[in-house]
Amino acid sequence: MENLFSPLPGDLAGEFFEPLAGTRRTRVERIVSRGHASPEGFWYDQDEHEFVVVLRGAARLRFEGPEEVVAMGPGDHLTIAAHRRHRVDWTTPDEPTVWLAVFFADEPA
Amino acid sequence: MENLFSPLPGDLAGEFFEPLAGTRRTRVERIVSRGHASPEGFWYDQDEHEFVVVLRGAARLRFEGPEEVVAMGPGDHLTIAAHRRHRVDWTTPDEPTVWLAVFFADEPA
Repeated sequence: MENLFSPLPGDLAGEFFEPLAGTRRTRVERIVSRGHASPEGFWYDQDEHEFVVVLRGAARLRFEGPEEVVAMGPGDHLTIAAHRRHRVDWTTPDEPTVWLAVFFADEPA
Repeated sequence: MENLFSPLPGDLAGEFFEPLAGTRRTRVERIVSRGHASPEGFWYDQDEHEFVVVLRGAARLRFEGPEEVVAMGPGDHLTIAAHRRHRVDWTTPDEPTVWLAVFFADEPA
């Protein structure tokens, strides 16, 4: 058994991504951010859907098509459809922001 | 956007299962327990793998083959392989226990 909150990675020079479980079509990941944002002008454009929840900390996600900015705190979750462009605008510098993300593919046709 | 902790279901006569996201091969569920346990002699025996994390509260899971009892608190997570028999032995009566579970199937052969 492992814990999402302990230990937290000591070196957060970059965002920290850790695969926790999954198969080829499903991946569960822990993400830890601290003051990180996506690089200027960078947008995620993923082949998979993503369920994401913030468990600690605070973050802002930005979406395109339609434009939307969502502030997230502990417990807040949403599902990002495949190919909906999004970026991390902000995470709080005050404490680590711990996310749990589940990536899942559509059924084969 | 929704929140895992608010609102909590008011009526917890039984455990509360809420699908949050997924497709046929992947399901993300919120589970809320309060003093619940699996029925005496009941074992889950699932076709899918299950990643499960306790986010609030406290619980004990029991496994067979090999026998194992695991006490879980906030942030603790583990992955239960398909067909590993398990049951919820105990959840705290003092507060709601909030779980997040991700069920995922093996790749087709």
